Amino acid sequence: MRFLKLTISYDGSRYAGWQIQPNALTIQQTLETAWQKITQEKIRLTSSGRTDAGVHALAQIVGLKTESKLQCDVLCRALNTILPNDIAVHTVTKAPEGFHPIRDAIGKRYRYQIVDGPVPEVFARQYAWQVFQKIDDQAMHEAAQALLGKHDFTSFEATGSDRVTSIRTIHDIFVKRQTDAGGERIVFEVAGDGFLYNMVRIIVGTLVEIGRGRRDSASLLEIISAQDRKQAGITAPPQGLFLVSVDYNEMETK
Amino acid sequence: MRFLKLTISYDGSRYAGWQIQPNALTIQQTLETAWQKITQEKIRLTSSGRTDAGVHALAQIVGLKTESKLQCDVLCRALNTILPNDIAVHTVTKAPEGFHPIRDAIGKRYRYQIVDGPVPEVFARQYAWQVFQKIDDQAMHEAAQALLGKHDFTSFEATGSDRVTSIRTIHDIFVKRQTDAGGERIVFEVAGDGFLYNMVRIIVGTLVEIGRGRRDSASLLEIISAQDRKQAGITAPPQGLFLVSVDYNEMETK
Repeated sequence: MRFLKLTISYDGSRYAGWQIQPNALTIQQTLETAWQKITQEKIRLTSSGRTDAGVHALAQIVGLKTESKLQCDVLCRALNTILPNDIAVHTVTKAPEGFHPIRDAIGKRYRYQIVDGPVPEVFARQYAWQVFQKIDDQAMHEAAQALLGKHDFTSFEATGSDRVTSIRTIHDIFVKRQTDAGGERIVFEVAGDGFLYNMVRIIVGTLVEIGRGRRDSASLLEIISAQDRKQAGITAPPQGLFLVSVDYNEMETK
Repeated sequence: MRFLKLTISYDGSRYAGWQIQPNALTIQQTLETAWQKITQEKIRLTSSGRTDAGVHALAQIVGLKTESKLQCDVLCRALNTILPNDIAVHTVTKAPEGFHPIRDAIGKRYRYQIVDGPVPEVFARQYAWQVFQKIDDQAMHEAAQALLGKHDFTSFEATGSDRVTSIRTIHDIFVKRQTDAGGERIVFEVAGDGFLYNMVRIIVGTLVEIGRGRRDSASLLEIISAQDRKQAGITAPPQGLFLVSVDYNEMETK
């Protein structure tokens, strides 16, 4: 019996999110089926968190327990051969006994992409939120800094969640306009010790209202204090969201 | 009766190319249907060239003759409202009487994207050719310079084409490795007065063989001289190809 850690990327466009559910195509189901084809072993995968339908991952972390004796790099290549081309396995490494991708995670980083302007951007339609007016990325950046540090983020949590605590710490948060081969985008990034359900998308939805001039940029501290989901903005749509990375304490991987 | 010029972008992934054909979804058909919905007018569109299935356009030029009295910006917004989100109209402007996007074009620029490396890049799967080994972009760039200028490009033309002449002039050609938010890519660009059928993709297929070390980088001049399609490399797959822009002599557009 070995514990393994997989680093994977996926384009979430075709999937009903990470988690297995009846009558829907999910990342977890697709990976477990591929694993079974290679090893004839039925296993249950865990990931560092459930991404929603349409949400993407650049480096999601997946953990599993296996009886398979196949070498890590053989498993990696075999998985990439079998998986559809919108899921890729970057690395397969040994993990310490009992490795659990959610419980052991000490931090995460998310990115959210926005395109602003009157003409639809065809290549961004599955990878960004298109806001059909120019928005003020600098105002969004300045407003976002109020979220840095340790706060009760109840106002930025989807109602109906059942987490024990809504206190989280944000280490880094920024908004910047970027131009590259893919065109011009507004890129939002946030890193912290953990995120509540829909927290990143609610932060983005609130910041975009500030960027549109529909909400005062000094309002974020008041929203935090209110501890009331209704005080924050809308939940930004899923397709702009990317899980960038998950941090763990140094692990023995040999 | 007015002549209009449309500048459009599209993600070619879902389409059987530009040109109308039976039992297949094409860009031309989709645009003509949208036009008819807005104006109740059945028209025939022409574009600066037929892109193949899976090929994309950042700024394809489309021409049409219309009886519609609707203002250009009204037409533009109406088209974007009706069109699927993988086709966008950037501008609609008046064109000179008799404007014909193929005949009047004096130059075109194409881009081709390649990703190289052992792990599949999920976000590039519809927008690049994935070559599963590192390739030498510098060798490709140097070799490509032999194509600059006026040549008979018969060796780089799909067999069975019926153009009057295979002589074309390339004004600019380069290969460079680029890293941006979307990851690392090898970007090829070429600009010239016109391109033969599959010419860009055959040039890229040949350069990639040089980048892989399977073909001598000094061989391009010999391939040109041979005037024989069999001397050049394979036709690179369509999904890496983007029509970047089409040039015209200055036109009256008011």
